[in-house]
Amino acid sequence: MKADGKELSKILTIELKNKMEKLNNINFVVILVGNDTNSLIYIKYKQKKCEELGINFKLNQYDINISEKELLCEIIKINTDISIDSCIIQLPLPLHLNQNNVLNSLDPKKDADGFTFYNLGRLIKHNKNDFIIKPATVLGIEKIINYYNIETKGKNIVIIGKSVIVGTPLGLVLSNESTYSGTITLCDKNTENLQEVCKNADILIVSVGKHNLIDHTFELKKSVSIIDVGINRIKDESKKSGFKTEGDVEFNYFEDKCEFITPVPGGVGPMTVICLIENIINLKRNSLK
Amino acid sequence: MKADGKELSKILTIELKNKMEKLNNINFVVILVGNDTNSLIYIKYKQKKCEELGINFKLNQYDINISEKELLCEIIKINTDISIDSCIIQLPLPLHLNQNNVLNSLDPKKDADGFTFYNLGRLIKHNKNDFIIKPATVLGIEKIINYYNIETKGKNIVIIGKSVIVGTPLGLVLSNESTYSGTITLCDKNTENLQEVCKNADILIVSVGKHNLIDHTFELKKSVSIIDVGINRIKDESKKSGFKTEGDVEFNYFEDKCEFITPVPGGVGPMTVICLIENIINLKRNSLK
Repeated sequence: MKADGKELSKILTIELKNKMEKLNNINFVVILVGNDTNSLIYIKYKQKKCEELGINFKLNQYDINISEKELLCEIIKINTDISIDSCIIQLPLPLHLNQNNVLNSLDPKKDADGFTFYNLGRLIKHNKNDFIIKPATVLGIEKIINYYNIETKGKNIVIIGKSVIVGTPLGLVLSNESTYSGTITLCDKNTENLQEVCKNADILIVSVGKHNLIDHTFELKKSVSIIDVGINRIKDESKKSGFKTEGDVEFNYFEDKCEFITPVPGGVGPMTVICLIENIINLKRNSLK
Repeated sequence: MKADGKELSKILTIELKNKMEKLNNINFVVILVGNDTNSLIYIKYKQKKCEELGINFKLNQYDINISEKELLCEIIKINTDISIDSCIIQLPLPLHLNQNNVLNSLDPKKDADGFTFYNLGRLIKHNKNDFIIKPATVLGIEKIINYYNIETKGKNIVIIGKSVIVGTPLGLVLSNESTYSGTITLCDKNTENLQEVCKNADILIVSVGKHNLIDHTFELKKSVSIIDVGINRIKDESKKSGFKTEGDVEFNYFEDKCEFITPVPGGVGPMTVICLIENIINLKRNSLK
């Protein structure tokens, strides 16, 4: 079965529109340092979705040479401004800024990306009904797993890629004994016998950014569910842009050889922005409690 | 090879005594709610070790019926008292207190157990030289791995038990790509085919508290390193006390069938208290920077 991330994101959009009806103004701020082209594209997506849902969107853009001290002051202003409900700091930051310091200066109660240490730490131990902010891609994958009824309890869930925004927090969420209780294997580029490790996977989640990392040389279970988080731009002269987008998994090969697979594009990707919106709405709802 | 946790803990004690010579007073507080017998025994060990190292130890003991609000006020007093360097809240807490709320009211800069969400979250992403507070048992296992030169990079490290004080944070530490870069598999009681999972382990870490969970029915690699964190009291009429202490692994069976094993008692156990002391000293040193 092929997942339809676009369809699922539409369903979520309707759910969130219903939630919005009970809420007043939500004020959301994006901090951008510099003017990286890709960052501006991603921010545009977020702005568009905010506007569709009726969330007030504001972009605070700073000079690429801003000092860490100045930037931290700006974030503290956001923390103390009661008219602002939530905020994200668009990554990547210029190299002269310490990313950990910057991300963690944001109040966890306004942290819509869930990237503060406090919110990441909460993933380690939580119960089903706790209010938790998860990184948007993690939440998006969780929603796919739930929507398509993919069994996790006791299953071998192999995650390739240990990033702080996807792989590692996703491992914590799917490992949690009071919710998914999966048996999680976290792999990176040093993993010996990756093919051997993947052979036993009931769920295989690939988030590396390496085109066709999982190709036809891998023998997977026929019952495997594959979730492909990779986004790779591949040269394709048949396209107007000269490029096509593909994932980390050789989709054409595995499409008929597995139980479930998410395509790229149209799988996890469309879930990410709508899940950020869900975080923004949930932070507001929680602040009103 | 059999690890000698007692010997290693003596070596660490000498190292820490040297570090203490360059420090003035360190004031450390243990919060205890109620008077649980086991908690009082553990606290005595900690007190003894503090006194041996010249750390000022204070026990703040509260009535078992203290309200959460009152306890949080007491912890806030500790946070704001500049004469107190660090603190732990002895677990378990009585059930009417929300453990997450209580633990996270402590300032992470005074959190010698490393149990605040902030300090746990830091384990997700850190570099080799970052100042990080890890839960004492996690730090103790790390020291055993380093001292006995157990290779971790790319190896299959199977951890059984997902507790918030051992298994899960240990997985984060050994998974970290800038330090150990292990391929981590985190198992719990729901794991299907545990025997199959353990068969591929290069390092097997068991932290469940179930006597002989890993017994002679398990086929492990001859090259496996086994770290047994379990502590189980077993009836033994030949002992004065009527009990002996054993681990989660059938030690007698595996002792000659593996590359490396930690005994119980005398393996991980003796490392825990000295690693708490290391946290106390490191928090003080860091506060002086």
